[in-house]
Amino acid sequence: MERSTRPSGTPVTSELDRRTLLGAMAAGVAAATVAESVSGAEPSIELKSGDTILFQGDSITDAGRSRNAGGANNGRAMGSGYPILLGSQLLKDHRDKALKVFNRGISGNKVPDLEARWKADCLDLNPSVLSILIGVNDIWHKRAGRYDGTVKQYEEGFLKLVQSTLEALPSVRIVICEPFVLRCGAITDEWFPEFDERRAAAATVARETKSLWVPFQSMFDAAVKAGTEPAYWAGDGVHPSMAGHALMAETWTKVTGL
Amino acid sequence: MERSTRPSGTPVTSELDRRTLLGAMAAGVAAATVAESVSGAEPSIELKSGDTILFQGDSITDAGRSRNAGGANNGRAMGSGYPILLGSQLLKDHRDKALKVFNRGISGNKVPDLEARWKADCLDLNPSVLSILIGVNDIWHKRAGRYDGTVKQYEEGFLKLVQSTLEALPSVRIVICEPFVLRCGAITDEWFPEFDERRAAAATVARETKSLWVPFQSMFDAAVKAGTEPAYWAGDGVHPSMAGHALMAETWTKVTGL
Repeated sequence: MERSTRPSGTPVTSELDRRTLLGAMAAGVAAATVAESVSGAEPSIELKSGDTILFQGDSITDAGRSRNAGGANNGRAMGSGYPILLGSQLLKDHRDKALKVFNRGISGNKVPDLEARWKADCLDLNPSVLSILIGVNDIWHKRAGRYDGTVKQYEEGFLKLVQSTLEALPSVRIVICEPFVLRCGAITDEWFPEFDERRAAAATVARETKSLWVPFQSMFDAAVKAGTEPAYWAGDGVHPSMAGHALMAETWTKVTGL
Repeated sequence: MERSTRPSGTPVTSELDRRTLLGAMAAGVAAATVAESVSGAEPSIELKSGDTILFQGDSITDAGRSRNAGGANNGRAMGSGYPILLGSQLLKDHRDKALKVFNRGISGNKVPDLEARWKADCLDLNPSVLSILIGVNDIWHKRAGRYDGTVKQYEEGFLKLVQSTLEALPSVRIVICEPFVLRCGAITDEWFPEFDERRAAAATVARETKSLWVPFQSMFDAAVKAGTEPAYWAGDGVHPSMAGHALMAETWTKVTGL
Protein backbone atom coordinates (compact mmCIF):
# COMPACT_ATOMS: atom_id res chain seq x y z
CA MET A 1 0.00 0.00 0.00
CA GLU A 2 1.45 3.36 -0.98
CA ARG A 3 1.57 6.02 1.68
CA SER A 4 -0.28 8.27 -0.73
CA THR A 5 -3.34 6.02 -0.63
CA ARG A 6 -3.81 6.47 3.08
CA PRO A 7 -6.98 8.19 4.18
CA SER A 8 -5.17 10.64 6.37
CA GLY A 9 -2.21 12.88 5.92
CA THR A 10 -0.92 12.09 9.38
CA PRO A 11 2.29 10.19 9.94
CA VAL A 12 1.66 6.49 10.44
CA THR A 13 4.53 4.13 11.01
CA SER A 14 5.41 1.92 8.11
CA GLU A 15 5.17 -0.94 10.58
CA LEU A 16 1.46 -0.22 10.99
CA ASP A 17 1.07 0.02 7.23
CA ARG A 18 2.75 -3.34 6.89
CA ARG A 19 0.72 -4.92 9.66
CA THR A 20 -2.53 -3.49 8.37
CA LEU A 21 -1.83 -4.90 4.97
CA LEU A 22 -0.67 -8.26 6.30
CA GLY A 23 -3.62 -8.38 8.65
CA ALA A 24 -6.04 -7.66 5.85
CA MET A 25 -4.44 -10.31 3.69
CA ALA A 26 -4.39 -12.84 6.52
CA ALA A 27 -8.06 -12.20 7.15
CA GLY A 28 -8.88 -13.19 3.62
CA VAL A 29 -9.77 -9.72 2.41
CA ALA A 30 -8.06 -8.72 -0.78
CA ALA A 31 -5.53 -6.02 -0.04
CA ALA A 32 -7.05 -4.08 -2.90
CA THR A 33 -10.29 -3.74 -0.95
CA VAL A 34 -8.60 -1.92 1.88
CA ALA A 35 -6.42 0.14 -0.42
CA GLU A 36 -9.32 1.11 -2.65
CA SER A 37 -11.60 1.91 0.20
CA VAL A 38 -9.12 4.40 1.54
CA SER A 39 -7.78 5.73 -1.74
CA GLY A 40 -11.10 7.38 -2.48
CA ALA A 41 -11.36 9.00 0.92
CA GLU A 42 -10.73 12.65 1.55
CA PRO A 43 -7.81 13.67 3.73
CA SER A 44 -7.78 13.57 7.49
CA ILE A 45 -10.25 15.54 9.53
CA GLU A 46 -9.70 19.07 10.79
CA LEU A 47 -11.97 20.24 13.55
CA LYS A 48 -13.55 23.68 13.70
CA SER A 49 -14.85 25.59 16.67
CA GLY A 50 -18.21 24.27 17.86
CA ASP A 51 -17.93 20.96 16.01
CA THR A 52 -19.90 17.95 17.23
CA ILE A 53 -18.38 14.46 17.22
CA LEU A 54 -20.85 11.59 17.39
CA PHE A 55 -20.07 7.91 18.03
CA GLN A 56 -22.74 5.55 16.75
CA GLY A 57 -23.08 1.80 16.86
CA ASP A 58 -24.00 -1.21 18.98
CA SER A 59 -22.88 -2.55 22.36
CA ILE A 60 -19.20 -2.14 21.49
CA THR A 61 -19.78 1.61 21.22
CA ASP A 62 -22.44 1.76 23.97
CA ALA A 63 -20.07 0.11 26.47
CA GLY A 64 -22.48 0.52 29.37
CA ARG A 65 -23.05 4.26 29.01
CA SER A 66 -25.58 5.92 31.28
CA ARG A 67 -28.84 6.76 29.51
CA ASN A 68 -29.70 9.31 32.21
CA ALA A 69 -26.55 11.41 31.91
CA GLY A 70 -27.60 13.50 28.96
CA GLY A 71 -25.83 16.33 27.24
CA ALA A 72 -22.50 16.57 25.50
CA ASN A 73 -19.11 15.86 27.05
CA ASN A 74 -20.48 13.87 29.97
CA GLY A 75 -18.17 11.07 31.05
CA ARG A 76 -21.00 8.98 32.50
CA ALA A 77 -22.77 9.08 29.13
CA MET A 78 -19.69 7.84 27.25
CA GLY A 79 -19.52 4.27 28.57
CA SER A 80 -16.26 2.51 29.26
CA GLY A 81 -15.08 1.89 25.70
CA TYR A 82 -13.30 3.66 22.86
CA PRO A 83 -15.71 6.65 22.85
CA ILE A 84 -14.64 7.82 26.31
CA LEU A 85 -10.98 7.32 25.45
CA LEU A 86 -11.33 9.26 22.20
CA GLY A 87 -13.76 11.87 23.52
CA SER A 88 -11.62 12.71 26.55
CA GLN A 89 -8.52 13.01 24.39
CA LEU A 90 -10.25 15.19 21.78
CA LEU A 91 -11.63 17.54 24.43
CA LYS A 92 -8.18 17.86 26.00
CA ASP A 93 -6.33 18.36 22.73
CA HIS A 94 -8.86 20.79 21.23
CA ARG A 95 -9.60 22.82 24.36
CA ASP A 96 -9.96 26.01 22.31
CA LYS A 97 -12.74 24.65 20.07
CA ALA A 98 -15.77 24.16 22.34
CA LEU A 99 -16.34 20.69 20.89
CA LYS A 100 -19.39 18.62 21.72
CA VAL A 101 -18.91 14.85 21.99
CA PHE A 102 -21.79 12.35 22.12
CA ASN A 103 -22.02 8.57 22.32
CA ARG A 104 -25.30 7.18 20.99
CA GLY A 105 -24.35 3.53 20.59
CA ILE A 106 -27.07 1.11 21.75
CA SER A 107 -26.42 -2.48 22.72
CA GLY A 108 -27.89 -5.04 20.31
CA ASN A 109 -28.31 -2.63 17.40
CA LYS A 110 -28.16 -3.68 13.77
CA VAL A 111 -28.38 -1.45 10.68
CA PRO A 112 -32.22 -1.37 10.74
CA ASP A 113 -32.13 -0.26 14.38
CA LEU A 114 -29.89 2.66 13.47
CA GLU A 115 -32.25 3.59 10.66
CA ALA A 116 -35.22 3.64 13.04
CA ARG A 117 -33.61 6.12 15.42
CA TRP A 118 -31.40 8.03 12.98
CA LYS A 119 -33.26 11.34 13.03
CA ALA A 120 -33.22 11.75 16.80
CA ASP A 121 -29.87 10.08 17.46
CA CYS A 122 -27.86 11.38 14.54
CA LEU A 123 -29.33 14.04 12.23
CA ASP A 124 -30.82 16.16 15.02
CA LEU A 125 -27.41 16.28 16.74
CA ASN A 126 -25.94 17.76 13.54
CA PRO A 127 -22.54 16.07 13.82
CA SER A 128 -19.46 17.39 12.02
CA VAL A 129 -17.78 14.03 12.54
CA LEU A 130 -19.84 10.84 12.60
CA SER A 131 -18.16 7.55 13.50
CA ILE A 132 -20.17 4.36 12.88
CA LEU A 133 -19.36 0.80 13.99
CA ILE A 134 -22.18 -1.59 13.08
CA GLY A 135 -22.47 -5.13 11.79
CA VAL A 136 -21.67 -7.80 14.33
CA ASN A 137 -25.28 -8.14 15.53
CA ASP A 138 -26.50 -8.29 11.93
CA ILE A 139 -24.82 -11.70 11.69
CA TRP A 140 -24.96 -12.74 15.35
CA HIS A 141 -28.73 -12.30 15.67
CA LYS A 142 -29.21 -14.02 12.34
CA ARG A 143 -27.17 -17.00 13.52
CA ALA A 144 -29.31 -17.07 16.69
CA GLY A 145 -32.48 -17.22 14.57
CA ARG A 146 -33.72 -13.78 15.64
CA TYR A 147 -33.12 -11.96 12.35
CA ASP A 148 -33.00 -12.84 8.68
CA GLY A 149 -31.05 -10.00 7.05
CA THR A 150 -28.61 -11.09 4.33
CA VAL A 151 -25.18 -9.70 3.56
CA LYS A 152 -26.74 -7.88 0.62
CA GLN A 153 -29.36 -6.30 2.86
CA TYR A 154 -26.64 -5.26 5.31
CA GLU A 155 -24.67 -3.55 2.57
CA GLU A 156 -27.70 -1.89 0.98
CA GLY A 157 -29.13 -0.71 4.28
CA PHE A 158 -25.77 0.60 5.51
CA LEU A 159 -25.11 2.36 2.19
CA LYS A 160 -28.54 3.98 2.19
CA LEU A 161 -28.06 5.15 5.80
CA VAL A 162 -24.73 6.80 4.98
CA GLN A 163 -25.92 8.30 1.71
CA SER A 164 -29.03 9.78 3.31
CA THR A 165 -26.85 11.21 6.08
CA LEU A 166 -24.63 12.90 3.52
CA GLU A 167 -27.68 14.35 1.83
CA ALA A 168 -29.04 15.74 5.09
CA LEU A 169 -25.65 16.91 6.39
CA PRO A 170 -23.49 17.66 3.34
CA SER A 171 -20.41 18.74 5.29
CA VAL A 172 -20.34 15.84 7.77
CA ARG A 173 -17.17 13.73 7.78
CA ILE A 174 -18.09 10.07 8.16
CA VAL A 175 -15.79 7.50 9.70
CA ILE A 176 -16.76 3.89 9.02
CA CYS A 177 -15.25 1.40 11.44
CA GLU A 178 -14.63 -2.14 10.22
CA PRO A 179 -16.74 -4.74 12.05
CA PHE A 180 -14.46 -7.26 13.73
CA VAL A 181 -14.38 -10.46 15.76
CA LEU A 182 -11.63 -12.24 17.65
CA ARG A 183 -11.29 -16.00 17.22
CA CYS A 184 -12.37 -16.96 20.74
CA GLY A 185 -15.46 -17.01 22.97
CA ALA A 186 -18.66 -17.00 20.94
CA ILE A 187 -16.85 -16.95 17.60
CA THR A 188 -16.77 -20.31 15.81
CA ASP A 189 -15.65 -21.33 12.32
CA GLU A 190 -19.32 -21.21 11.32
CA TRP A 191 -19.19 -17.43 11.37
CA PHE A 192 -17.07 -17.61 8.22
CA PRO A 193 -16.97 -16.80 5.37
CA GLU A 194 -20.12 -14.74 6.02
CA PHE A 195 -18.43 -12.48 8.54
CA ASP A 196 -15.66 -11.66 6.05
CA GLU A 197 -18.32 -10.91 3.43
CA ARG A 198 -19.94 -8.46 5.83
CA ARG A 199 -16.59 -6.78 6.50
CA ALA A 200 -16.11 -6.44 2.75
CA ALA A 201 -19.62 -4.96 2.51
CA ALA A 202 -18.75 -2.32 5.12
CA ALA A 203 -15.57 -1.52 3.16
CA THR A 204 -17.67 -1.09 0.04
CA VAL A 205 -19.92 1.37 1.84
CA ALA A 206 -16.84 3.33 2.96
CA ARG A 207 -15.43 3.36 -0.56
CA GLU A 208 -18.64 4.34 -2.30
CA THR A 209 -19.31 7.20 0.12
CA LYS A 210 -15.67 8.34 0.32
CA SER A 211 -15.77 7.82 4.07
CA LEU A 212 -12.71 7.29 6.22
CA TRP A 213 -12.12 3.60 6.97
CA VAL A 214 -10.79 2.29 10.26
CA PRO A 215 -9.45 -1.26 9.76
CA PHE A 216 -10.26 -2.75 13.17
CA GLN A 217 -10.20 -6.37 11.96
CA SER A 218 -6.81 -5.99 10.35
CA MET A 219 -5.59 -4.26 13.49
CA PHE A 220 -6.72 -7.05 15.82
CA ASP A 221 -5.46 -9.72 13.42
CA ALA A 222 -2.04 -8.06 13.46
CA ALA A 223 -2.05 -7.83 17.26
CA VAL A 224 -2.86 -11.55 17.55
CA LYS A 225 -0.23 -12.46 14.97
CA ALA A 226 2.30 -10.50 17.00
CA GLY A 227 1.72 -12.89 19.89
CA THR A 228 -1.17 -11.76 22.09
CA GLU A 229 -4.02 -14.19 22.72
CA PRO A 230 -7.33 -13.22 21.01
CA ALA A 231 -9.13 -13.24 24.38
CA TYR A 232 -6.80 -10.50 25.66
CA TRP A 233 -8.48 -8.14 23.20
CA ALA A 234 -12.06 -9.46 23.54
CA GLY A 235 -12.90 -12.23 25.99
CA ASP A 236 -16.08 -13.33 24.22
CA GLY A 237 -14.68 -12.60 20.78
CA VAL A 238 -17.02 -9.63 20.28
CA HIS A 239 -16.81 -7.15 23.15
CA PRO A 240 -13.35 -5.60 23.53
CA SER A 241 -11.42 -5.56 26.77
CA MET A 242 -10.01 -2.30 28.12
CA ALA A 243 -6.87 -3.04 26.11
CA GLY A 244 -8.95 -3.75 23.00
CA HIS A 245 -10.78 -0.43 23.31
CA ALA A 246 -7.47 1.39 23.76
CA LEU A 247 -6.08 -0.24 20.63
CA MET A 248 -9.22 0.81 18.73
CA ALA A 249 -8.88 4.39 19.97
CA GLU A 250 -5.25 4.46 18.86
CA THR A 251 -6.06 3.28 15.34
CA TRP A 252 -9.09 5.57 15.03
CA THR A 253 -6.86 8.51 15.96
CA LYS A 254 -4.26 7.57 13.37
CA VAL A 255 -6.80 7.17 10.58
CA THR A 256 -8.69 10.38 11.29
CA GLY A 257 -5.60 12.42 12.03
CA LEU A 258 -7.30 13.77 15.16
CA MET B 1 14.13 23.13 38.36
CA GLU B 2 16.97 21.00 37.09
CA ARG B 3 16.09 18.13 34.78
CA SER B 4 18.02 15.89 37.18
CA THR B 5 15.54 16.59 39.96
CA ARG B 6 12.59 15.16 38.06
CA PRO B 7 10.98 12.06 39.52
CA SER B 8 11.09 10.17 36.28
CA GLY B 9 13.72 9.49 33.71
CA THR B 10 11.28 10.02 30.86
CA PRO B 11 11.61 12.93 28.49
CA VAL B 12 9.42 15.83 29.52
CA THR B 13 9.36 19.00 27.52
CA SER B 14 11.12 21.96 29.02
CA GLU B 15 7.87 23.82 28.44
CA LEU B 16 6.13 21.53 30.91
CA ASP B 17 8.98 22.00 33.38
CA ARG B 18 8.62 25.73 33.04
CA ARG B 19 4.85 25.64 33.37
CA THR B 20 4.93 23.30 36.32
CA LEU B 21 7.32 25.61 38.09
CA LEU B 22 5.41 28.74 37.16
CA GLY B 23 2.16 27.08 38.12
CA ALA B 24 3.53 26.05 41.48
CA MET B 25 4.85 29.54 42.09
CA ALA B 26 1.61 31.16 41.01
CA ALA B 27 -0.30 28.89 43.34
CA GLY B 28 1.67 30.19 46.27
CA VAL B 29 3.70 27.06 46.85
CA ALA B 30 7.43 27.65 47.16
CA ALA B 31 9.18 26.22 44.12
CA ALA B 32 11.52 24.48 46.54
CA THR B 33 8.62 22.37 47.79
CA VAL B 34 7.98 20.90 44.38
CA ALA B 35 11.65 20.53 43.57
CA GLU B 36 12.45 18.90 46.88
CA SER B 37 9.47 16.62 46.74
CA VAL B 38 10.65 15.18 43.47
CA SER B 39 14.39 15.31 44.05
CA GLY B 40 14.13 12.58 46.66
CA ALA B 41 12.00 10.31 44.51
CA GLU B 42 13.27 7.19 42.84
CA PRO B 43 13.34 7.01 39.06
CA SER B 44 10.35 6.27 36.91
CA ILE B 45 8.43 3.04 37.19
CA GLU B 46 9.16 -0.10 35.22
CA LEU B 47 6.44 -2.72 35.19
CA LYS B 48 7.06 -6.43 35.56
CA SER B 49 4.92 -9.34 34.46
CA GLY B 50 1.93 -9.86 36.74
CA ASP B 51 2.12 -6.42 38.32
CA THR B 52 -0.99 -4.88 39.86
CA ILE B 53 -1.77 -1.17 39.46
CA LEU B 54 -4.21 0.28 41.97
CA PHE B 55 -5.90 3.69 41.82
CA GLN B 56 -7.08 4.96 45.20
CA GLY B 57 -8.89 8.09 46.25
CA ASP B 58 -12.22 9.86 46.47
CA SER B 59 -14.96 10.74 43.95
CA ILE B 60 -12.44 12.11 41.44
CA THR B 61 -10.93 8.64 41.21
CA ASP B 62 -14.22 6.77 41.70
CA ALA B 63 -15.82 8.64 38.78
CA GLY B 64 -19.02 6.61 38.94
CA ARG B 65 -17.42 3.17 38.76
CA SER B 66 -19.67 0.13 39.09
CA ARG B 67 -19.38 -1.55 42.47
CA ASN B 68 -20.81 -4.78 41.03
CA ALA B 69 -18.30 -5.23 38.24
CA GLY B 70 -15.55 -6.83 40.27
CA GLY B 71 -12.22 -8.22 39.20
CA ALA B 72 -9.27 -6.64 37.51
CA ASN B 73 -9.27 -4.94 34.12
CA ASN B 74 -13.02 -4.43 33.99
CA GLY B 75 -14.02 -1.24 32.18
CA ARG B 76 -17.30 -0.89 34.07
CA ALA B 77 -15.39 -0.99 37.37
CA MET B 78 -13.04 1.81 36.28
CA GLY B 79 -15.50 4.72 36.20
CA SER B 80 -15.30 7.48 33.64
CA GLY B 81 -12.23 9.33 34.87
CA TYR B 82 -8.45 9.18 34.71
CA PRO B 83 -8.27 5.52 35.93
CA ILE B 84 -10.02 4.15 32.83
CA LEU B 85 -7.91 6.33 30.55
CA LEU B 86 -4.69 5.21 32.24
CA GLY B 87 -5.73 1.61 32.80
CA SER B 88 -6.81 1.07 29.20
CA GLN B 89 -3.59 2.59 27.92
CA LEU B 90 -1.39 0.56 30.28
CA LEU B 91 -3.12 -2.70 29.32
CA LYS B 92 -2.67 -1.89 25.63
CA ASP B 93 0.95 -0.81 25.93
CA HIS B 94 2.02 -3.66 28.23
CA ARG B 95 0.07 -6.47 26.56
CA ASP B 96 2.86 -8.96 27.30
CA LYS B 97 2.80 -8.43 31.07
CA ALA B 98 -0.57 -9.77 32.28
CA LEU B 99 -1.14 -6.62 34.33
CA LYS B 100 -4.03 -6.27 36.73
CA VAL B 101 -5.61 -2.81 37.06
CA PHE B 102 -8.04 -1.85 39.83
CA ASN B 103 -9.89 1.32 40.76
CA ARG B 104 -10.91 1.48 44.43
CA GLY B 105 -11.67 5.18 44.74
CA ILE B 106 -14.82 5.90 46.77
CA SER B 107 -16.80 9.11 46.53
CA GLY B 108 -16.64 11.30 49.65
CA ASN B 109 -13.52 9.67 51.09
CA LYS B 110 -11.01 11.48 53.27
CA VAL B 111 -7.74 10.14 54.69
CA PRO B 112 -9.47 8.46 57.68
CA ASP B 113 -11.85 6.68 55.26
CA LEU B 114 -8.90 5.26 53.35
CA GLU B 115 -7.34 4.09 56.63
CA ALA B 116 -10.54 2.28 57.59
CA ARG B 117 -10.65 0.22 54.40
CA TRP B 118 -6.94 0.03 53.60
CA LYS B 119 -6.42 -3.67 54.32
CA ALA B 120 -9.22 -4.86 52.01
CA ASP B 121 -8.93 -2.16 49.39
CA CYS B 122 -5.18 -1.82 49.17
CA LEU B 123 -2.90 -4.22 51.05
CA ASP B 124 -4.89 -7.35 50.14
CA LEU B 125 -4.67 -6.42 46.45
CA ASN B 126 -0.85 -6.38 46.78
CA PRO B 127 -0.26 -3.54 44.31
CA SER B 128 3.08 -3.01 42.61
CA VAL B 129 2.02 0.53 41.75
CA LEU B 130 -0.29 2.46 44.06
CA SER B 131 -1.62 5.85 42.97
CA ILE B 132 -3.36 7.96 45.63
CA LEU B 133 -5.37 11.16 45.18
CA ILE B 134 -6.91 12.30 48.47
CA GLY B 135 -7.51 15.58 50.25
CA VAL B 136 -10.28 17.69 48.78
CA ASN B 137 -12.99 16.22 51.01
CA ASP B 138 -10.75 16.66 54.07
CA ILE B 139 -11.22 20.41 53.65
CA TRP B 140 -14.64 20.43 51.91
CA HIS B 141 -16.39 18.39 54.61
CA LYS B 142 -14.69 20.48 57.28
CA ARG B 143 -15.96 23.67 55.68
CA ALA B 144 -19.44 22.12 55.58
CA GLY B 145 -19.27 21.40 59.32
CA ARG B 146 -19.23 17.63 58.91
CA TYR B 147 -15.60 17.03 59.89
CA ASP B 148 -13.01 18.69 62.08
CA GLY B 149 -9.66 17.39 60.83
CA THR B 150 -6.87 19.98 60.70
CA VAL B 151 -4.13 20.36 58.11
CA LYS B 152 -1.74 18.78 60.61
CA GLN B 153 -4.04 15.79 61.04
CA TYR B 154 -4.32 15.44 57.25
CA GLU B 155 -0.54 15.39 56.88
CA GLU B 156 0.05 13.02 59.79
CA GLY B 157 -2.72 10.63 58.76
CA PHE B 158 -1.63 10.60 55.13
CA LEU B 159 2.03 10.11 56.09
CA LYS B 160 1.15 7.23 58.43
CA LEU B 161 -0.98 5.60 55.73
CA VAL B 162 1.84 5.70 53.19
CA GLN B 163 4.53 4.64 55.65
CA SER B 164 2.47 1.68 56.87
CA THR B 165 1.87 0.68 53.24
CA LEU B 166 5.61 0.72 52.55
CA GLU B 167 6.18 -1.45 55.61
CA ALA B 168 3.57 -3.99 54.50
CA LEU B 169 4.57 -3.91 50.81
CA PRO B 170 8.26 -2.95 50.69
CA SER B 171 8.53 -3.07 46.90
CA VAL B 172 5.40 -1.06 46.07
CA ARG B 173 5.92 2.13 44.06
CA ILE B 174 3.68 4.88 45.41
CA VAL B 175 2.42 7.74 43.29
CA ILE B 176 1.02 10.67 45.26
CA CYS B 177 -1.25 12.94 43.28
CA GLU B 178 -1.50 16.59 44.28
CA PRO B 179 -4.98 17.58 45.49
CA PHE B 180 -6.33 20.37 43.32
CA VAL B 181 -9.24 22.74 42.80
CA LEU B 182 -10.25 25.02 39.97
CA ARG B 183 -11.32 28.58 40.80
CA CYS B 184 -14.98 28.18 39.88
CA GLY B 185 -18.16 26.41 41.03
CA ALA B 186 -17.98 25.53 44.72
CA ILE B 187 -14.51 27.01 45.19
CA THR B 188 -14.48 30.42 46.90
CA ASP B 189 -11.65 32.57 48.24
CA GLU B 190 -12.45 31.18 51.66
CA TRP B 191 -10.86 27.88 50.69
CA PHE B 192 -7.48 29.64 50.85
CA PRO B 193 -4.84 29.62 52.21
CA GLU B 194 -5.92 26.35 53.87
CA PHE B 195 -6.21 24.48 50.59
CA ASP B 196 -2.65 25.49 49.64
CA GLU B 197 -1.45 24.32 53.04
CA ARG B 198 -3.05 20.94 52.41
CA ARG B 199 -1.37 20.70 49.01
CA ALA B 200 1.94 21.46 50.69
CA ALA B 201 1.17 18.75 53.25
CA ALA B 202 0.62 16.19 50.48
CA ALA B 203 3.92 17.26 48.90
CA THR B 204 5.63 16.73 52.24
CA VAL B 205 4.21 13.21 52.43
CA ALA B 206 5.53 12.51 48.92
CA ARG B 207 8.96 13.88 49.80
CA GLU B 208 9.30 12.07 53.11
CA THR B 209 8.27 8.73 51.61
CA LYS B 210 10.25 9.20 48.36
CA SER B 211 7.02 8.76 46.41
CA LEU B 212 6.46 10.00 42.89
CA TRP B 213 4.61 13.32 42.86
CA VAL B 214 2.05 14.29 40.22
CA PRO B 215 1.57 18.08 40.25
CA PHE B 216 -2.10 18.28 39.28
CA GLN B 217 -2.66 21.76 40.76
CA SER B 218 0.32 23.22 38.90
CA MET B 219 -0.89 21.48 35.76
CA PHE B 220 -4.42 22.93 35.96
CA ASP B 221 -3.06 26.36 36.94
CA ALA B 222 -0.86 26.33 33.84
CA ALA B 223 -3.78 25.25 31.63
CA VAL B 224 -5.93 28.11 32.95
CA LYS B 225 -3.06 30.60 32.58
CA ALA B 226 -2.72 29.47 28.97
CA GLY B 227 -6.27 30.66 28.33
CA THR B 228 -8.84 27.96 29.10
CA GLU B 229 -11.63 28.77 31.54
CA PRO B 230 -11.36 26.93 34.89
CA ALA B 231 -14.84 25.42 34.38
CA TYR B 232 -13.66 23.69 31.20
CA TRP B 233 -11.49 21.49 33.40
CA ALA B 234 -13.92 21.06 36.32
CA GLY B 235 -17.40 22.59 36.22
CA ASP B 236 -17.89 22.64 39.98
CA GLY B 237 -14.24 23.36 40.69
CA VAL B 238 -13.66 19.89 42.13
CA HIS B 239 -14.79 17.14 39.75
CA PRO B 240 -12.88 17.13 36.46
CA SER B 241 -14.54 17.17 33.08
CA MET B 242 -13.60 14.59 30.46
CA ALA B 243 -10.92 17.02 29.29
CA GLY B 244 -9.70 17.46 32.87
CA HIS B 245 -9.39 13.72 33.38
CA ALA B 246 -7.49 13.40 30.10
CA LEU B 247 -5.07 16.13 31.17
CA MET B 248 -4.53 14.33 34.50
CA ALA B 249 -3.87 11.03 32.69
CA GLU B 250 -1.33 12.73 30.46
CA THR B 251 0.60 14.25 33.36
CA TRP B 252 0.42 11.03 35.41
CA THR B 253 1.93 9.17 32.45
CA LYS B 254 4.77 11.67 32.09
CA VAL B 255 5.66 11.60 35.78
CA THR B 256 5.58 7.83 36.14
CA GLY B 257 7.25 7.17 32.81
CA LEU B 258 4.58 4.55 32.06
